[in-house]
Amino acid sequence: MEKVTVSIITIGDELLIGQVVDTNSAWMAQQLNKAGLWVQHRAAVGDDEDDIWNALDEEGKRSDIILITGGLGPTADDITKPLLCKYFGGKLVMHEPTLQHVTYLFEHIFKRPMPMLDRNRRQAEVPDVCTVLPNKLGTAPGMLFEKNGKIFISMPGVPQEMKGIMTDVVLPLLKERFKLPYIGHRTLITFGVGESMLAEQIKDWEEALPPFIKLAYLPNYGMVRLRLTASGEQNIIDKTLDEEFAKLKSLVKAVLVVDEDITLEQLIGRLLKQRNKTLSTAESCTGGYIAHLITAVPGASAYFKGSVVSYDNSIKQNVLHVKEDTLQSVGAVSEETVREMIKGVLPLMQTDYAVAVSGIMGPDGGTPEKPVGTVWIAVGNSEKTEAKKLQFRFDRAKNIELTAMNALNMLRIFILENS
Amino acid sequence: MEKVTVSIITIGDELLIGQVVDTNSAWMAQQLNKAGLWVQHRAAVGDDEDDIWNALDEEGKRSDIILITGGLGPTADDITKPLLCKYFGGKLVMHEPTLQHVTYLFEHIFKRPMPMLDRNRRQAEVPDVCTVLPNKLGTAPGMLFEKNGKIFISMPGVPQEMKGIMTDVVLPLLKERFKLPYIGHRTLITFGVGESMLAEQIKDWEEALPPFIKLAYLPNYGMVRLRLTASGEQNIIDKTLDEEFAKLKSLVKAVLVVDEDITLEQLIGRLLKQRNKTLSTAESCTGGYIAHLITAVPGASAYFKGSVVSYDNSIKQNVLHVKEDTLQSVGAVSEETVREMIKGVLPLMQTDYAVAVSGIMGPDGGTPEKPVGTVWIAVGNSEKTEAKKLQFRFDRAKNIELTAMNALNMLRIFILENS
Repeated sequence: MEKVTVSIITIGDELLIGQVVDTNSAWMAQQLNKAGLWVQHRAAVGDDEDDIWNALDEEGKRSDIILITGGLGPTADDITKPLLCKYFGGKLVMHEPTLQHVTYLFEHIFKRPMPMLDRNRRQAEVPDVCTVLPNKLGTAPGMLFEKNGKIFISMPGVPQEMKGIMTDVVLPLLKERFKLPYIGHRTLITFGVGESMLAEQIKDWEEALPPFIKLAYLPNYGMVRLRLTASGEQNIIDKTLDEEFAKLKSLVKAVLVVDEDITLEQLIGRLLKQRNKTLSTAESCTGGYIAHLITAVPGASAYFKGSVVSYDNSIKQNVLHVKEDTLQSVGAVSEETVREMIKGVLPLMQTDYAVAVSGIMGPDGGTPEKPVGTVWIAVGNSEKTEAKKLQFRFDRAKNIELTAMNALNMLRIFILENS
Repeated sequence: MEKVTVSIITIGDELLIGQVVDTNSAWMAQQLNKAGLWVQHRAAVGDDEDDIWNALDEEGKRSDIILITGGLGPTADDITKPLLCKYFGGKLVMHEPTLQHVTYLFEHIFKRPMPMLDRNRRQAEVPDVCTVLPNKLGTAPGMLFEKNGKIFISMPGVPQEMKGIMTDVVLPLLKERFKLPYIGHRTLITFGVGESMLAEQIKDWEEALPPFIKLAYLPNYGMVRLRLTASGEQNIIDKTLDEEFAKLKSLVKAVLVVDEDITLEQLIGRLLKQRNKTLSTAESCTGGYIAHLITAVPGASAYFKGSVVSYDNSIKQNVLHVKEDTLQSVGAVSEETVREMIKGVLPLMQTDYAVAVSGIMGPDGGTPEKPVGTVWIAVGNSEKTEAKKLQFRFDRAKNIELTAMNALNMLRIFILENS
């Protein structure tokens, strides 16, 4: 059993001027970690020959495996392929199976005029010192190089294509090549308690943890995810992790949401499915975001019927039948309004449960009595409705996110207590 | 005028096992770039003393300014502060103004029981060799160190807090300290044409570009963003960029969406505001995502009235008045259905324009006639409705994103042609 280390290099000026967020690295790290590989460093460099060359040198010294994404497209700002060719001492040659695949894609899938452009044909050229890794979903193939006992793998930066090559080729290949250690994780999620309060509650247990178990706190939108990690012999690791995880669960029982690494919306889907119940939402300030989260989960149609996004007060009145009097006397951001939104949406959508939110997300629209960040949330069924006021102090995007998370957590508790 | 280079180091095991996506780096890079600083390298390391130490060494050699985020929280997995103290040869001392601020936050904002926990008091400790950078929104202050003529700045990893320190302190300080070059960008967005076709269209112009202007292709969900970048003397840079940008715009006229770096939903907001028109959506397969995108733009209440998320067919019938006959004869994913959704939502929401979508996002629910990825989109006003069928071949999340982007682009064109 060996500890096999990985570096990830992402290439592209767009990463260094912040025009895109790097989601590839996180996905790759997840998959590698599950397979028992240890990502110890990630580097991002621009479309610059010297910087890419140096990154290959540095990461080649640091890690056993170097995964590279980006810089393989058909346009002139993509300089990675010729550079890799030079770095590994090869020359570019046409790879016939790739050319056939590229031609097939252009003719039958992309339905482009034939014959292909020269720049597209050149997508099928590879350094003669690499092993070609097929890219089913795109034109630029993955390439594997070896140098000084290290493995370098280059893949396109398009997420879908990178994922395909990783899943189909790279991960199976690495698992076969190395005897990988077992890496075990146990994750639980708490809601509504800060990182430091939580740390204080579990201090004695944390200090007594065996040294080979690592604990991480991952705070995010009112939730804190606690993760235990250890690697080694599977039997011992799993047994010790299970024991320590059981202790941790009982210590945080009062604020525990779930003892798995799943999202709140996945958990709610599971609770509803188990109970054979349905859900609808009535959203003002979140503008459909709660419904989006719920329907991002595959199979949501089994329990989610729909939503009324009543952004304008006229929709609250005409579609959800919130009383004009309520809107005029206490306003749209009020307990009365969210309660009436629940009363309106339940019969309209004919669901067992409903969630309603109304608030001021900013940057404008605040008043001294109802500053930006004021939110009312209600959850209910045909028998009862519970409402709560919250006050956030962030920007628009984070206020929307926090409102949604708090609404989902209130819903979770309501389902557990009323079913 | 000098070229001032920056490295960004992000610290945290959660980045290396892929549990969180690093959005901080992209935001920081954007701000730095705007200020005339050049981010040349980004590195991510785990909560490991040696790895952090090495990253400080490496990036300290590479760049003039090293920005560090993460690892400053109150819990035991945060080892950055003591390490920085050792690295820069200082010792930890209590910083009274920070202690007062932390105490204030705990007592009045977080409303925690007093007196504070020891671990929270210790948040106010800093190495005696640093300059403290106040963190208005949180407890862990930023810290500035100097070593071998290089500037190292450490900030917490909580995005909101990092952004506050960057905006309030770090950016003004760097602008004062360095005579920064001017960096100019011109960005335009195209829709519906692939990267390589686009490259072919503008090939001659691209080859004739002055060498100090860089062109980047940034493909994303059916759109390609083209960005020109140059740095130097402001007058010359702006004049040349304007000239080349004008040529580029005329070359891509047929597929041009907008000649600014804004989102489709911001553009639609602007078009509606200029025309004093309103919008509603009727969403099935996107589950509220289009409404969410539109309402993520500040001030959307001026033109967006609301949405019916008709995930279940009963909602299509009962709320949007899609005919039972339509749903039974041609199904929910059909031209007839999205047209009837438009006809239903326009009078319900009393808006000038409406968008409707219905499709199969996967992974389940496909049939031979309507495979996963089949989508119907309609846009309309009281006078006419246009509908289009699309076929995607990706996973659920990407299919939802592509449906939303295509719907917004159809809406953009419809508004321009019918107003």
